[in-house]
Amino acid sequence: MRKYVAELIGTFMLVFVGTGAVVIAKGDTLTIALAFGLTVTVMAYAFGAISGGHFNPAVSIAMMINQRLSVKDGIAYIVAQFIGSALASGLMAILINALSLSKTGFGQTDFPKIGGGVAFLVETVVTFAFILVILMVTSNRYGNSQMAPLAIGVTLSLLIIVALNLTGASLNPARSFGPAVFAGGAALTHYWLYVAAPVVGAILAALAGQLFGSEEN
Amino acid sequence: MRKYVAELIGTFMLVFVGTGAVVIAKGDTLTIALAFGLTVTVMAYAFGAISGGHFNPAVSIAMMINQRLSVKDGIAYIVAQFIGSALASGLMAILINALSLSKTGFGQTDFPKIGGGVAFLVETVVTFAFILVILMVTSNRYGNSQMAPLAIGVTLSLLIIVALNLTGASLNPARSFGPAVFAGGAALTHYWLYVAAPVVGAILAALAGQLFGSEEN
Amino acid sequence: MRKYVAELIGTFMLVFVGTGAVVIAKGDTLTIALAFGLTVTVMAYAFGAISGGHFNPAVSIAMMINQRLSVKDGIAYIVAQFIGSALASGLMAILINALSLSKTGFGQTDFPKIGGGVAFLVETVVTFAFILVILMVTSNRYGNSQMAPLAIGVTLSLLIIVALNLTGASLNPARSFGPAVFAGGAALTHYWLYVAAPVVGAILAALAGQLFGSEEN
Amino acid sequence: MRKYVAELIGTFMLVFVGTGAVVIAKGDTLTIALAFGLTVTVMAYAFGAISGGHFNPAVSIAMMINQRLSVKDGIAYIVAQFIGSALASGLMAILINALSLSKTGFGQTDFPKIGGGVAFLVETVVTFAFILVILMVTSNRYGNSQMAPLAIGVTLSLLIIVALNLTGASLNPARSFGPAVFAGGAALTHYWLYVAAPVVGAILAALAGQLFGSEEN
Repeated sequence: MRKYVAELIGTFMLVFVGTGAVVIAKGDTLTIALAFGLTVTVMAYAFGAISGGHFNPAVSIAMMINQRLSVKDGIAYIVAQFIGSALASGLMAILINALSLSKTGFGQTDFPKIGGGVAFLVETVVTFAFILVILMVTSNRYGNSQMAPLAIGVTLSLLIIVALNLTGASLNPARSFGPAVFAGGAALTHYWLYVAAPVVGAILAALAGQLFGSEEN
Repeated sequence: MRKYVAELIGTFMLVFVGTGAVVIAKGDTLTIALAFGLTVTVMAYAFGAISGGHFNPAVSIAMMINQRLSVKDGIAYIVAQFIGSALASGLMAILINALSLSKTGFGQTDFPKIGGGVAFLVETVVTFAFILVILMVTSNRYGNSQMAPLAIGVTLSLLIIVALNLTGASLNPARSFGPAVFAGGAALTHYWLYVAAPVVGAILAALAGQLFGSEEN
Repeated sequence: MRKYVAELIGTFMLVFVGTGAVVIAKGDTLTIALAFGLTVTVMAYAFGAISGGHFNPAVSIAMMINQRLSVKDGIAYIVAQFIGSALASGLMAILINALSLSKTGFGQTDFPKIGGGVAFLVETVVTFAFILVILMVTSNRYGNSQMAPLAIGVTLSLLIIVALNLTGASLNPARSFGPAVFAGGAALTHYWLYVAAPVVGAILAALAGQLFGSEEN
Repeated sequence: MRKYVAELIGTFMLVFVGTGAVVIAKGDTLTIALAFGLTVTVMAYAFGAISGGHFNPAVSIAMMINQRLSVKDGIAYIVAQFIGSALASGLMAILINALSLSKTGFGQTDFPKIGGGVAFLVETVVTFAFILVILMVTSNRYGNSQMAPLAIGVTLSLLIIVALNLTGASLNPARSFGPAVFAGGAALTHYWLYVAAPVVGAILAALAGQLFGSEEN
């Protein structure tokens, strides 16, 4: 049970800090990228020993494919991640109301400047890169458990720098879930892409990890 | 005695660098967040082996609740932390005077844009998250002593990014003390909230740490 | 074969994230510098155990000179690095088109404000410094395998801060290759300098490493 | 001999990157602070095993006082540090000329907004804090050799954030030397302060380290 709560709290913090950097701090690209990425870093240092520190259904799916996570735990992780995201956006709704900010800005992800095909490509590529790094740095063979949370979080930050202006840089169905539900509109209509593309990226990364030997013991 | 002086110096540096980033550097959100957070990081690398590196009465209270710190030491730590904060704001007063800056800006914490209830909620939530991370990464069971100071300081930076526009992001009764005394006004009238909410957050985090097993040896 | 693919992916990511920070994020100097530098860091954490994590022909040349890399592997690494760079700029072309950005801005390197002699000097000096740091922190005698990827990537970021306004701060024939091919113009005409100067810097760094004892076992 | 060259190169890089961030990149406070601080970090990872990684006469003086460095080596270190600084400003002169920038801006340190007494106080306090951190994190008793270079460099960055608008945040007689010689004017007239105050800070830090037990084996 502890590990499910750890995933819930970690995903809550990811969405709370990340979308808070967008909505409340109105940060620049670097601030937003560091807010999302380094929250994964610190949550993984705090809870990695309990749950593995996924905070992202695409990561949990890759871990299930590569048999590092049971299907039962994987499903429970994903449910916990979605609940964490929804709770974070719920808290954000209170804060947005308190600050009298626009009720349509929850730090949701969307792709207003580009077509759906390119958006799908971008989310797939960046999620692939993100999860391949995760598989490598947490592998028995090539990994570095001391620095893995830092490498993983910084990777997310870097990919957000590139993808923020394209797709909002989700890489994570749970990260997009809570904000989409509260913001509605195009973020909700387009939400399917933020499930499908990261899942495709996760499947490809799981296979690539196998080819690179990250799953060899 | 060394450990009390370590807490005094660490808290002095936290307030000196953090409020200096606000008042003297007039930094943006990221600069201010990194100034506070990373000062905790470097002070914990420097003095963690002596005092544990709290620099925050809320942290010391959580450590007392979870019996990692004696009540005697806890009280002395808290006194040292308040003295360090007051000395830092005293030095800041000299620098503000030398630069002919406004005598009302000491980097104090307040919540001019939101109500007291939401402010209390925000300070409680972010202090809870901060101290839960501390308990986990410094625990015998799940901790990582090498990286703990980095994880702790970065966590503080991330929470400040979100909370700065809401409550000034204190998470620390000592951090708010010196600036409130020197600035007076609403920061002093509202100072009670920056004691009460972090203490509530600390109590909840101490309990959550127990549930997560951070206190199991 | 794995190691060649690792070099291709790492160089792809370096160019994708780095030039993406310029072209798509339109980041400031710090954002661009961190994008390039920290991508080397995270790619080295992910793939360093497979290929050594060069992602740069100048680095591979220095490693060949100092007999840490066979000539056969060195040539294959360099080919892989160039392919990775070209693929990254190819993806960037798709994204630039999708965003309707200028077709002449691929994050290419050039030196419009200074003469060729000074540009050559700058690229030589910064590549020398970069590769000397790499040789030292990855050496058996003085190195620190845990922190080496962080030290290397941060060094690149720091040198980019200084050299960005001078030469675009390449330090890497592969990094300049893809963008020059796609952008054409002066970036392509001047491309030779981004091969020659880093190679000179690499040769000097390899010799300096020998003098400092980085190659002693 | 290697260790003296290491000190020369490290100080060269500190002044080259740091003042380059000011003069060439025209960076904001955070960029400048990270440029100076993290250059110390990466140079210490690269050359710390050879020379200890001082790059600062005030640090070398504190190390001599606490008998971690012989007087002979200390004098040679300081000479090397001054040469490194002068060479860096010499290269900067070439770059400033190439970019047609003002011939009076070399990233020199001065205190145009405050009096000499406050400037002396500021440089003494921040140098004291910087060197006390160095003594602690590099001590046998409390130190952390893996993370020490990171903690030291980040400490410098943080102190620069606070002191940049006051005194230019030198903390280092060598860092101020080259720029003052090339810039002349008030930076040269006031140069004595950037020797005297850091030396006072170093002496006080050496004593404080003794009291904290950093010199106990």
